[in-house]
Amino acid sequence: MALLLDNQFAQLPNTNEVTTKEFLDSVSYLPPFFDCLGSKVFAPIKADINGNITKIRAVYDSDPAKYETLQKILEVEKGIYGSEWPKAGATLALMWLKRGLRFIQILLQSLADGERDENNPNLIRVNITKAYDQALKRYHGWIVQKVFKAALLAAPYRSDFLKALSKGQEVTEEDCLANIRQFLVNFTATVDAIYAMYTVMNAELDYSV
Amino acid sequence: MALLLDNQFAQLPNTNEVTTKEFLDSVSYLPPFFDCLGSKVFAPIKADINGNITKIRAVYDSDPAKYETLQKILEVEKGIYGSEWPKAGATLALMWLKRGLRFIQILLQSLADGERDENNPNLIRVNITKAYDQALKRYHGWIVQKVFKAALLAAPYRSDFLKALSKGQEVTEEDCLANIRQFLVNFTATVDAIYAMYTVMNAELDYSV
Ligand SMILES: CCCCCCCCCCCCC/C=C/[C@@H](O)[C@H](CO[C@@H]1O[C@H](CO)[C@H](O)[C@H](OS(=O)(=O)O)[C@H]1O)NC(=O)CCCCCCCCCCC
Ligand SMILES: CCCCCCCCCCCCC/C=C/[C@@H](O)[C@H](CO[C@@H]1O[C@H](CO)[C@H](O)[C@H](OS(=O)(=O)O)[C@H]1O)NC(=O)CCCCCCCCCCC
Repeated sequence: MALLLDNQFAQLPNTNEVTTKEFLDSVSYLPPFFDCLGSKVFAPIKADINGNITKIRAVYDSDPAKYETLQKILEVEKGIYGSEWPKAGATLALMWLKRGLRFIQILLQSLADGERDENNPNLIRVNITKAYDQALKRYHGWIVQKVFKAALLAAPYRSDFLKALSKGQEVTEEDCLANIRQFLVNFTATVDAIYAMYTVMNAELDYSV
Repeated sequence: MALLLDNQFAQLPNTNEVTTKEFLDSVSYLPPFFDCLGSKVFAPIKADINGNITKIRAVYDSDPAKYETLQKILEVEKGIYGSEWPKAGATLALMWLKRGLRFIQILLQSLADGERDENNPNLIRVNITKAYDQALKRYHGWIVQKVFKAALLAAPYRSDFLKALSKGQEVTEEDCLANIRQFLVNFTATVDAIYAMYTVMNAELDYSV
């Protein structure tokens, strides 16, 4: 489980505040996740997520103390951008990034829970579709939704996907799923905390692209 | 016709050799062409083409004299990369870039020639499909082809597209088409010369993505 377990997300403190540096370090290991999907069709998605991370990192690097937590980024930028906010800066980048993270989280959770299409047990379309419907679909216009449907056909087989996630290690499918469950603990908590923060800060937007 | 006419491609010399610097300067004005298509769906295409240009420019900048013409780039890189070539370096970037340029050329030519779907005279799907079929389709696997079909639905109306191309100037449709024809003269000659060079140098590949 090189890809996931070696780079687990940190446990959240009681305040649920997410430390920017730790978050950025952990999250940078995720774009290769899209390589596990096996097709170049997913390259634009990886690029979009990488773009989000780069943007947040640039803001953080400009003043690490000021932007120590994700919470602080939203608060400081709210002051900087005025009425443009939250559709600006690292606040916007994190708004979209969290949706990609939620997509990954739901996909992995669905696999860990053993959800599958009984007629096509080695396909993960049903898991990907669930993740897409819950994390992204409402933010996509009908054309991007159609593009998604076409891209879905490039999804790998379940067995190949699990093997790719365990890259570099010989593990049984059951071990791989156990690793996923382990990874999901802190990851899910982090994603949930970010979503909660956007709600509390009234920073969520629902325009679609 | 700000977008196209202000940044015409240079006339080719009798040798048909394309000067790298002039080519790069002219071609950098083309990615905004994809913004004229009006939808963010086309952003990954723009990014791909921008990536090609960046890669060629980096090679050129590393030694402007050595890489003075596109021809020289292919010759020098053939020596550098050995059996990896032509799937390497600026040779690969230009191989793909020329397909995007051919796509643009055929699309504009088809518009200039007045080709249209008589049942939907204000749609440009027929022109885009023609350009795609001739320039790109064979290099795309069936899934990317399906993605293309979905993305095609995001194509703008003919009138909006022509207006976008003339950005910043009030021109009649006839003037706009005349400008396109004018732009196409040197542009087509340049694209043709690059294709001919890939044939002569035996540098063309036909793998699909
Ligand atoms: C030759 C034929 C070619 C035809 C061309 C077809 C092109 C197809 C287009 C596909 C779209 C690629 C995905 C990218 C979508 C993006 O448009 C959206 C919004 O992107 C955000 O936009 C903001 C401004 O509104 C800022 O720029 C953000 O940037 S900022 O950092 O500057 O603030 C940016 O992330 N991100 C998204 O929807 C996020 C996507 C996450 C995806 C998660 C997984 C999905 C997995 C699917 C598996 C099946
Ligand atoms: C949430 C849902 C999201 C689902 C995700 C969907 C994603 C959809 C995927 C769309 C593909 C985007 C277009 C990019 C395609 C690219 O894959 C190809 C090959 O790209 C080349 O690959 C090489 C290696 O083989 C090098 O890396 C080249 O890079 S190098 O510089 O490093 O050498 C690179 O350009 N370029 C192409 O096919 C070129 C495309 C030109 C397009 C011209 C116009 C078409 C207009 C269409 C109008 C309707």
